[in-house]
Amino acid sequence: MILYDLVNARGAHFSPNSWRTRLALLHKGLPFEVKDVRFGEIAGIRPEGDKPTIPSLGHAGGLISDSWAIAQYLDATFPDTPRLIPAGPEGQVLRFFQHWAQTTVHAGIGRLILLDLHDSLHPSDQAYFRSSREKMYKATLEAVQAGREERVDAFRKSLQPLRLALAEGPFVCGAQPGYADYLAFGGFMWARVSSPFALLAEDDVVHAWRERCLDLYGGAGRREPAA
Amino acid sequence: MILYDLVNARGAHFSPNSWRTRLALLHKGLPFEVKDVRFGEIAGIRPEGDKPTIPSLGHAGGLISDSWAIAQYLDATFPDTPRLIPAGPEGQVLRFFQHWAQTTVHAGIGRLILLDLHDSLHPSDQAYFRSSREKMYKATLEAVQAGREERVDAFRKSLQPLRLALAEGPFVCGAQPGYADYLAFGGFMWARVSSPFALLAEDDVVHAWRERCLDLYGGAGRREPAA
Repeated sequence: MILYDLVNARGAHFSPNSWRTRLALLHKGLPFEVKDVRFGEIAGIRPEGDKPTIPSLGHAGGLISDSWAIAQYLDATFPDTPRLIPAGPEGQVLRFFQHWAQTTVHAGIGRLILLDLHDSLHPSDQAYFRSSREKMYKATLEAVQAGREERVDAFRKSLQPLRLALAEGPFVCGAQPGYADYLAFGGFMWARVSSPFALLAEDDVVHAWRERCLDLYGGAGRREPAA
Repeated sequence: MILYDLVNARGAHFSPNSWRTRLALLHKGLPFEVKDVRFGEIAGIRPEGDKPTIPSLGHAGGLISDSWAIAQYLDATFPDTPRLIPAGPEGQVLRFFQHWAQTTVHAGIGRLILLDLHDSLHPSDQAYFRSSREKMYKATLEAVQAGREERVDAFRKSLQPLRLALAEGPFVCGAQPGYADYLAFGGFMWARVSSPFALLAEDDVVHAWRERCLDLYGGAGRREPAA
């Protein structure tokens, strides 16, 4: 299997959604190779047909994009490995968790590190990043990131349901990590390799959980070069 | 089984956590009686030992308080009825959902209708409610509720992960309602019977979901006298 993943100027893998897939593959114990791409090289992964997105997984001659679709594909293709997404209503509640991670963790972090993200990219990717993100946020990267020291408290408060969950066990999924942990942790990896900004207070249970996640699978996250 | 539940001055059951339990009992098809109490009568449910909380469920000579503990008790005691809380990691993700409902739905609604809640109570409960809630919020009931017309938009935005989930299916749990739906819906019942304030825009998928929840189990929610 080939995981197509984005790298920044220092060769660090920063895509939050790719971290979900990477940890999903490690969770299942499935071997995979990583093929590094820059934003400008994504279309070249599959020259014909729809442009893929990152992460994309190449397997058995096919290419699957989108971390949720990849998790479903892995569950279906390797039924003897630990399941990521439960069938039925439990899978829907996990899907809600992904929506929460997107709207709270990812969106919250994005507004705190957007300019740092830009600066961490390979110069050939920076113009694309600036123009696409400034259109998305309807503001300059500088304006989006400005005042983050005053805004980080609100971000930390927004993590309160995660904090309450982690007060009850080492991982969101309980004694052992599961896909919900990877869904939320991806955002923190995105920040870790892209920005030196301190997102979490050191006495926060979310901070301790992030440290535990960094250690998973031989320290896969911790080995990635931090900003 | 006896469900001990709070009533307001018009006899409406307003406790958001009791609505979780009530819908859980209906979901399982278990017969139950409701015993109405006011805040001032809670201690009398069990004159000896720790003061119970609402909801409490009386069954087989015992009394269980706390809606999550009651759901666990019902799953364990009636294993042939549809399960509310899955075992293992899926149950932990559902528990996260409860934390989200508490910190976003309940806390958000509380700050929009706190004075209306007071006014809807039986006069004998109002002094207790005012003093305990003003201590909790560190502000008068009037100050907490003030400016809600300007603040309701932020509350609606905070429901975005619920909105994204409901864009994918009629219920949080998918095609059929489940405990996650009841966890979030309880807060909306609390508001419905206590305050005329419009929490949701009529074109919101969350509004449509609330309507569907009101119709469940013969319209149990809809039959309750609205404010």
